[in-house]
Amino acid sequence: MITVETQNFFTASSWKCEALLVPSFHDVDPMGVVWHGNYFRVFESVRESLFHALDYGYAEMNRTGFIWPVVDCKIKYIKPWLLEEPARVSAEIVEFENRLKMHYEIRAQKDEALLNKCDMTHMAFDLQRQTSSFVSPDIFLEKLRLAGARL
Amino acid sequence: MITVETQNFFTASSWKCEALLVPSFHDVDPMGVVWHGNYFRVFESVRESLFHALDYGYAEMNRTGFIWPVVDCKIKYIKPWLLEEPARVSAEIVEFENRLKMHYEIRAQKDEALLNKCDMTHMAFDLQRQTSSFVSPDIFLEKLRLAGARL
Amino acid sequence: MITVETQNFFTASSWKCEALLVPSFHDVDPMGVVWHGNYFRVFESVRESLFHALDYGYAEMNRTGFIWPVVDCKIKYIKPWLLEEPARVSAEIVEFENRLKMHYEIRAQKDEALLNKCDMTHMAFDLQRQTSSFVSPDIFLEKLRLAGARL
Amino acid sequence: MITVETQNFFTASSWKCEALLVPSFHDVDPMGVVWHGNYFRVFESVRESLFHALDYGYAEMNRTGFIWPVVDCKIKYIKPWLLEEPARVSAEIVEFENRLKMHYEIRAQKDEALLNKCDMTHMAFDLQRQTSSFVSPDIFLEKLRLAGARL
Repeated sequence: MITVETQNFFTASSWKCEALLVPSFHDVDPMGVVWHGNYFRVFESVRESLFHALDYGYAEMNRTGFIWPVVDCKIKYIKPWLLEEPARVSAEIVEFENRLKMHYEIRAQKDEALLNKCDMTHMAFDLQRQTSSFVSPDIFLEKLRLAGARL
Repeated sequence: MITVETQNFFTASSWKCEALLVPSFHDVDPMGVVWHGNYFRVFESVRESLFHALDYGYAEMNRTGFIWPVVDCKIKYIKPWLLEEPARVSAEIVEFENRLKMHYEIRAQKDEALLNKCDMTHMAFDLQRQTSSFVSPDIFLEKLRLAGARL
Repeated sequence: MITVETQNFFTASSWKCEALLVPSFHDVDPMGVVWHGNYFRVFESVRESLFHALDYGYAEMNRTGFIWPVVDCKIKYIKPWLLEEPARVSAEIVEFENRLKMHYEIRAQKDEALLNKCDMTHMAFDLQRQTSSFVSPDIFLEKLRLAGARL
Repeated sequence: MITVETQNFFTASSWKCEALLVPSFHDVDPMGVVWHGNYFRVFESVRESLFHALDYGYAEMNRTGFIWPVVDCKIKYIKPWLLEEPARVSAEIVEFENRLKMHYEIRAQKDEALLNKCDMTHMAFDLQRQTSSFVSPDIFLEKLRLAGARL
């Protein structure tokens, strides 16, 4: 994937990142469309841009004691995404109190057609206690609050 | 992934493939577990073994006019799958009349613990008419019937 | 990979693209560094940005009759590239008359340390004749000339 | 990739693994051939099968204090490797005293045509001292000796 541009949209209660991406040759399968398993790299990169803007990247997660493995995922492949076709990928935090729920959408730049949507759930894992945590750690809530306050 | 062995279990009305797989270094992420997006390569390979045994590989699909893009997928990451940890991955056809629905499970070899389960839906795409087909093509039903009859 | 920015440097006789990239979680292996096989996605994406600026992307290649498979590659892994570590990746055309030779370098943003260098050779493949071509097609030389002339 | 079978060929002074592999859909690019960057997953998996037979997998490497990052690689793409085309991939240890040098070859099953060859160098990294080692550690030489003695 080539990232053309990335933008964050934060309010006091919503956190969303949008990136304009263009599929590379290695993202595309023999049918000429992005291979279904390659969407997970795309979503991860846009989520990373969002979390970077929240000052909550991997180094910061490790430093503050919690990591966030994926526990489940639902994805719908609505229209094929073609080689060299620019599309906007959005990553939005839709729940954060207990589990972290992310919603992703991919829309063709040319006509805004929805190509793909995906819901993914992450759960905080406490590195010190080595257990999953059923509530989000304070540090994450604080990062969200601070990002909203920077407006 | 390294495939240790592969076995097909066919009856007149069920078609399942089971492979014993061991994660490679490149399948595993910085947390030491198979990265969530890499499961899709695993499922595809086991499905390909199953379809090969049905004499319905990609060349045969193309020759007989229909390909099978993924339209949706639900996946649950239940327990982490570790580097070098042997696990049995099963791929089973659970619906075939209209859409093709595949069910996947991954179980640790050492204790049969369920690591992952996934449901994936494919839809036949008619290469000549260039449209999706809401019923499965006769050729696929015939392949299933023949595989059951070879018992 | 997350692309932070991309810049092209063209003269009448040199064509180079430089991108500032940050490794994603899925690029990194259990040792915490970019996995050796993932550099090829990185190089390809930066080469694509360069060729896009030359107005010679895949659609244009296909339209004008030649594609460019890789025929050989030499790569040196000098220092590890870490998760979340920004680095500048350059892709430069170093020969174009017969084969296309690309040179890649990756340097850490923080101290300009060279992390990786790579030389890759592509050969034009004539889609109509279905043979490799031992001289570069006129269309490619013309694209290079035009890009230099746009200065 | 689907592994059909794997065989080790050990003597007192040579260590080689050969696997019969079939490319999966996700290994193949829009030109219908294995994408050039995907060969590195293939080589790694066959090398892992070889090292597993030497009783020197990743867990054992870590337990005995040395890991083996790749330091350089030369690869030649001689003929395309097609989707569903069975080929034999060999991984052989060709030097081991200082650096570890591996040689890989890929040959089509149908006519033994050489599709690809690759030379890769690894260097021992001492986990305790956190430095590269210019001679191979005793543990690795002992593993090689023992594998030869098991004949």
